Amino acid sequence: MPQLTHGGDWAGFAAEYGTMPLDFSANISPLGLPEGVRRAIAEAAAGQDRYPDPLCRELCAAIGKSRRLPAEWVLCGNGAADLIWRLALALKPRRALLTAPTFAEYAAALHSVGCEVSEYLLHPETEFAVDETFLNAITPETDLVLLCEPNNPTGRTTDPDLLRAILKKCTTTGTLLAVDECFNEFLDDPAAHTLEGSLADHPNLLIFKAFTKWYAMAGVRLGYVLGSDTALLECLRAAGQPWAVSGLAQAAGLAALQETGYSRTLHALIAEQRPRLGDGLAKLGCKVIPGQANYLLFFHERRDLVPALRRKRVLLRDCSNYTGLGPGWYRCAVRSKAENDAFLQALGEVL
Amino acid sequence: MPQLTHGGDWAGFAAEYGTMPLDFSANISPLGLPEGVRRAIAEAAAGQDRYPDPLCRELCAAIGKSRRLPAEWVLCGNGAADLIWRLALALKPRRALLTAPTFAEYAAALHSVGCEVSEYLLHPETEFAVDETFLNAITPETDLVLLCEPNNPTGRTTDPDLLRAILKKCTTTGTLLAVDECFNEFLDDPAAHTLEGSLADHPNLLIFKAFTKWYAMAGVRLGYVLGSDTALLECLRAAGQPWAVSGLAQAAGLAALQETGYSRTLHALIAEQRPRLGDGLAKLGCKVIPGQANYLLFFHERRDLVPALRRKRVLLRDCSNYTGLGPGWYRCAVRSKAENDAFLQALGEVL
Repeated sequence: MPQLTHGGDWAGFAAEYGTMPLDFSANISPLGLPEGVRRAIAEAAAGQDRYPDPLCRELCAAIGKSRRLPAEWVLCGNGAADLIWRLALALKPRRALLTAPTFAEYAAALHSVGCEVSEYLLHPETEFAVDETFLNAITPETDLVLLCEPNNPTGRTTDPDLLRAILKKCTTTGTLLAVDECFNEFLDDPAAHTLEGSLADHPNLLIFKAFTKWYAMAGVRLGYVLGSDTALLECLRAAGQPWAVSGLAQAAGLAALQETGYSRTLHALIAEQRPRLGDGLAKLGCKVIPGQANYLLFFHERRDLVPALRRKRVLLRDCSNYTGLGPGWYRCAVRSKAENDAFLQALGEVL
Repeated sequence: MPQLTHGGDWAGFAAEYGTMPLDFSANISPLGLPEGVRRAIAEAAAGQDRYPDPLCRELCAAIGKSRRLPAEWVLCGNGAADLIWRLALALKPRRALLTAPTFAEYAAALHSVGCEVSEYLLHPETEFAVDETFLNAITPETDLVLLCEPNNPTGRTTDPDLLRAILKKCTTTGTLLAVDECFNEFLDDPAAHTLEGSLADHPNLLIFKAFTKWYAMAGVRLGYVLGSDTALLECLRAAGQPWAVSGLAQAAGLAALQETGYSRTLHALIAEQRPRLGDGLAKLGCKVIPGQANYLLFFHERRDLVPALRRKRVLLRDCSNYTGLGPGWYRCAVRSKAENDAFLQALGEVL
C-alpha cells in the first residue's frame, strides 16, 4: 500500500472500520457542500458526455467578475494542487525558497523537475512566524519563492507590510513570488492578507486560490491561479493536459460563486469556533499555535494521539513528517460547535 | 485567446452562435452518459465535501475485477491524458518513439520534460498502417515507445502478431512500451487487439484505458493505466498531485462498470454505423481511411470543410495540424444513424 502523506484518509478508515470517521485531519468547511452547488452538479451530470471547456471560459469570466479582475488573469485547475504541479513543470526553476513547515506538495512538485529547494526554517519559539530575515534568503539566484498565506499547517499569516516587502524584494531579484492563499477566506480579515491588489503592478506575482476548502468541494476538485502575466498563465496551461478541470467542477464553481449566504455563515462560524477550540486544546495541556485559519497546529508530548483518537473514530493529522516539526505535533480542523466538542471530549478521554 | 489543438470545442461554438453544435469533432459514445452513471453522480454530489480517496481503492478493485487483473495493477487518473503527462514526468525518457500522425498529447507531454521524440511516419498510400519496419525504429537507445491502438486519428489497428513482435523487441532493447487502448472497445473485436494478456509477463508494458469515450464521460474525466510493475505505477502516482481523480469520477466509474446493457447497445451501434458513414463519405467524394474505431479519417481536396460545416452548426475535426497529415485531412466521429445522416447531408450541401 502506497504511503499517504496528507490528512483526510476517510477511505482508509472506512475500509478498516466499516463506518465513516469524524474527520479533523482535513481542513474543509464544516457546513458541507452548499445546496446550490449540489444541485448544479446533479443538473450538469447528464451533459458530461461533452469534453469540458478546456479554457473554462464561463467560469474564468465569473471568477474575474467576483474578484474584480480581468478574466484573462484567471487560470483554473483540477484543484490548486494541479496548478502547483503545472507551475513546477512549466518553469522548471533551478532554485526555489519555501518555508518549513509548509504544504508538502510544493516540494514534491519542485523536486519532480530537479529543483533545488531551500527551506527557511520557522521556529516554534516564535510560533512559526515569518520575520524580516526571510528577505535575506531571497537572492538573484532564487527563481521562485512559494509562500503559503495563511501557512499550512501553522495557520499563521505574515505581517502584510512584510509580505509587500517580500514582493518588492522578489521584484528586485527577478524572482517569481507564488502565494498560496487557499485558506485566505477563513481569516477574520481576508482583505488585509491578500496580495491581489498587487497583481496589476507585479507580473512576477501569482496567487493560488481554491474552491475546495471554503465551499467544501474537496471531492469535486477546483482551484485557480491569478496573475497579470497572461503569457505565464498560458505556460502553466500548456504544462499539462487540456481537460484538467471537469465539466462538473466548472458547473459547481459557477454555482458556488452565488453562495453569499453560505459564505457569511461560514465566516462567522470559523471566527467563533477557532478560539473556542484553541481554548479547549490549551485546557487539555496542548501547546496551541495561534493560527488564524480553519485549523490549529498544536503540540502535545504524547506521540500516539493519532492512533488513540482513531480508535475513537476521530481522524487527526499527524504533523511529525513535516520538515521543521516532529513527533508530538498535530493539526486539527476547526469545525462546527458540536463536532469540536466531540473532538475535545475524545481527546480528553485519550489524555 | 489561446490556441486549441483538439476537437470538441462546443463551448467556443456556443459562445459564438448561442446554440449547441452537432459535434462530430470529438469521439464520444453517441448514446450519452448512461442513466446509472448520471444517477451515481447526482447521489454522490452531497458527499464531495470530503477529499477524494487518493488511492481510488474501491474503483481500482472494481476495475481489476472487471478486467480479471489484480487491483494493484490499476492506477486511475483524471482522464487517460493525466496519466500520459505523469508518465512523461515520472520517467523523463531521453528518447521516445511515436507514430505520426497520432494523438498530440503524447508529444506535448514528452517535450515538456525535454524528451527527444522520434516520429515514425505513417503513409496515406498504406492507409497509415504500422508495418514491420517499425521494429527497426526501436533500438536500445529508445526509452519509450508510445503506440495508440486503434490509432487516433486514423482509426487503424496494428496486426496483433506485429504488436506482439513490437512488445518482444521492446523487451529485448529494454524499452518501455506504452499502448493507448482508449478506443479499443469500439473495435469489432476488442479482445483480439488488446495486449492485456501480455501484462503478467511484461513489466515493461503499460496499457492506458479510458471511461471518457465509451461511457460518454468526457466531462467527468476518468481513465486508468494497467501495468504489472507496481513500482512503476507508484512512480506515476507520485508524479502529480494525490487527488487528481475527483470523488464524482470515482462514483461515476463504479456505476459505469455496471452498464452491460449500454455496452452491448453501443457496440452494435458503432459496428453498424461505421461502414454506413464510411460509404456515405465515399459517395461524397472523400477518400476514407478504413478506420475501425468510432471515428473516421478522410481526405477531401476542399480545405474549408471545417468553417463551411461550422456555419451549418456541425463541428468537424481539422487534421491539418497533425504531423504526417496536412490540409484536406479531416476526422469525424461515428454517431447515431440520425446524426450521421444529418452530418452527411450537411457535408453534401457544402460539397
